[in-house]
Amino acid sequence: MKIIVAPDSFKGSLSAVEAANAIDKGIKKAFPDAETVLIPVADGGEGTLETLVTATEGEMKHVIVTDPLGNKVEAGYGILGDKKTCVIEMAAASGLTLLSEEELSPLAATTYGTGQLIKQALDDGFTSFVVGLGGSATNDGGAGMLQALGLRILDAEGKEIGYGGDALGKIASIEIDSFDPRIKDCQFLIASDVENPLIGLNGASHIFGPQKGATPEMIEQLDQNLAHFADQVAKVTGIKLHDMPGAGAAGGIGGAFQAFFPCELERGIDVVLEYSNINQFLTGTDLVITGEGKVDGQTASGKTPLGVAQTAQRQGVPTIILAGSAGDDTAVLHDFGVVSIHSIVNKPMTLEESMRNASILLELSAEQVVRSYFYAFNHIKGGAIYEN
Amino acid sequence: MKIIVAPDSFKGSLSAVEAANAIDKGIKKAFPDAETVLIPVADGGEGTLETLVTATEGEMKHVIVTDPLGNKVEAGYGILGDKKTCVIEMAAASGLTLLSEEELSPLAATTYGTGQLIKQALDDGFTSFVVGLGGSATNDGGAGMLQALGLRILDAEGKEIGYGGDALGKIASIEIDSFDPRIKDCQFLIASDVENPLIGLNGASHIFGPQKGATPEMIEQLDQNLAHFADQVAKVTGIKLHDMPGAGAAGGIGGAFQAFFPCELERGIDVVLEYSNINQFLTGTDLVITGEGKVDGQTASGKTPLGVAQTAQRQGVPTIILAGSAGDDTAVLHDFGVVSIHSIVNKPMTLEESMRNASILLELSAEQVVRSYFYAFNHIKGGAIYEN
Repeated sequence: MKIIVAPDSFKGSLSAVEAANAIDKGIKKAFPDAETVLIPVADGGEGTLETLVTATEGEMKHVIVTDPLGNKVEAGYGILGDKKTCVIEMAAASGLTLLSEEELSPLAATTYGTGQLIKQALDDGFTSFVVGLGGSATNDGGAGMLQALGLRILDAEGKEIGYGGDALGKIASIEIDSFDPRIKDCQFLIASDVENPLIGLNGASHIFGPQKGATPEMIEQLDQNLAHFADQVAKVTGIKLHDMPGAGAAGGIGGAFQAFFPCELERGIDVVLEYSNINQFLTGTDLVITGEGKVDGQTASGKTPLGVAQTAQRQGVPTIILAGSAGDDTAVLHDFGVVSIHSIVNKPMTLEESMRNASILLELSAEQVVRSYFYAFNHIKGGAIYEN
Repeated sequence: MKIIVAPDSFKGSLSAVEAANAIDKGIKKAFPDAETVLIPVADGGEGTLETLVTATEGEMKHVIVTDPLGNKVEAGYGILGDKKTCVIEMAAASGLTLLSEEELSPLAATTYGTGQLIKQALDDGFTSFVVGLGGSATNDGGAGMLQALGLRILDAEGKEIGYGGDALGKIASIEIDSFDPRIKDCQFLIASDVENPLIGLNGASHIFGPQKGATPEMIEQLDQNLAHFADQVAKVTGIKLHDMPGAGAAGGIGGAFQAFFPCELERGIDVVLEYSNINQFLTGTDLVITGEGKVDGQTASGKTPLGVAQTAQRQGVPTIILAGSAGDDTAVLHDFGVVSIHSIVNKPMTLEESMRNASILLELSAEQVVRSYFYAFNHIKGGAIYEN
């Protein structure tokens, strides 16, 4: 009996690694001899770095960088097990979770720290990058990141503009010559699930601005400033980011990558699964267990489990999903190799209780679910596990 | 694929019949061609009548009787599919659910109505009785029932005593000659899980009095009165009920049966399963699904699912339990043929929400659980149900 355990994080309660460990414990309680392979996954947002480094037995490199508000923060990048690929999680340097709710300030927040992480990795000799977007506190179009990498973004007086989405409105010119020349010889794989354009009603400011603290007035201002920034970028690169799909990811940093970096965009979960080598482990696997805080059939929140299930399905391996909250409209997932979806909640309880006890609930539910799944399996194969 | 669906009621939300229907719906959503046999079960208390009549395709006979407080109430007895056995549920005539909380009155409440039900069945020609105890509002030692069947229980002035546990203290004599002579030629199978004696700290009044509204003072009084009643019964029958196991069931009516009726006591779930003919249906069955509002490893509340599982286990059929609330200490149940225990709660919610939505939650969880259980089953047997 071989089981791959590939959960996402249970947001607010368990990291993907913690979730995988809890599920593994439950499986071992049911079947002490089960062979398990733990492959914590992530959707390209927060947690991507940890899961990829863990999955490939890589290592972390710590760097002091500038946080979204210009203060110092210890962040880091990951070096995968291949020793060649470096993983940047923009949330580590420029993420929402670095700020308290009162500190949210999309007019001021900068991606400068993300640029510093990339620069450090370049200095360390890396040329192959995986960058996880998502969870950003910024709406600066990636201007801060570009500045950290040498791009000169100047106001009418020829001075560097300051940090944040507000300053973009002052751009009079962009000088590209000083941009770090090493970038063009690198490969950037951008993990992002966002298809939104840079500006407009479906753009970065309108769609993601509110969760970063933008008021309706700020949103208008930010959207205008991103449009102005895109105009200036077009002048020097010839690339019009305004309506480009994916340019609106992470406060517009998606656009900055597309204009200035040799890059490819890919769905976050697919990037993670690719680097996790899940395909290699799927051979001979009887069941994949994945999970996430909330799974339903309508929203994108079930995307990570779905990506796992699709990958497993391509090798004929079925998947079971464990979720803190399991919607009643999940039948669509069955088309993608999902056998069944189970909630970890084992009695009426509050959201807070379920989050506080997520680890033990996940363990208990994994135990019961694998018992039920493998009962017939073992029974029919002759390895009867229950005395009658 | 053949599945027996044998849940108890989910107290406060679903009768056993409703629970069985919900589970059946979930199974059919997963596997439209599944063969299901619905055998709602009960523990001998409330719901026993309905489940046995339904399971055997019997019928109900309606009778107007005296309720616990001496008012009229429409109750009834059941005639099983064999047309020979009659089922009396004492809760139907003398039960707690007939009274509001303010009406609870163990000093006054009588089992007279239960006696009337038996008398009516005798008049209708029945000689084989199944009597479900439990859920009673009474603490009269079964005196009311005995009176309804002709026993004369007299005070010092030679007058019949009144209703309730209070009146027992006035008994000066009991005249047995007038007791319905048909009783001795009948068979009574008493379904009861209570092992308590009639009197003392483990007796009917101390253990079950509080839930019937007895204050500490009332409990003392009720216990003394039951002791006095037992003294009087011993005088005319030679049977000492005081410490007899099971005599304390349902306010002491268990003792009345043992002193005056040809009877056998059996665990409620076993009586129900016997009359449900579950054994006959178990042949060729792949899985039994049972369930109850609350299942854990410590309390007796998991008794009905356990009884179902034990019966199935004797024929080598595994059981899965669905519960509103699934404890984390249920491992002991695995020794009795229980494959796994799953909660129907599919996200954080209040008890009230889970009870209000119990039917759909049960349906959803049954669907997911049978999907997981039968996946390998079908897969290995070659009847692949999922495209890969």
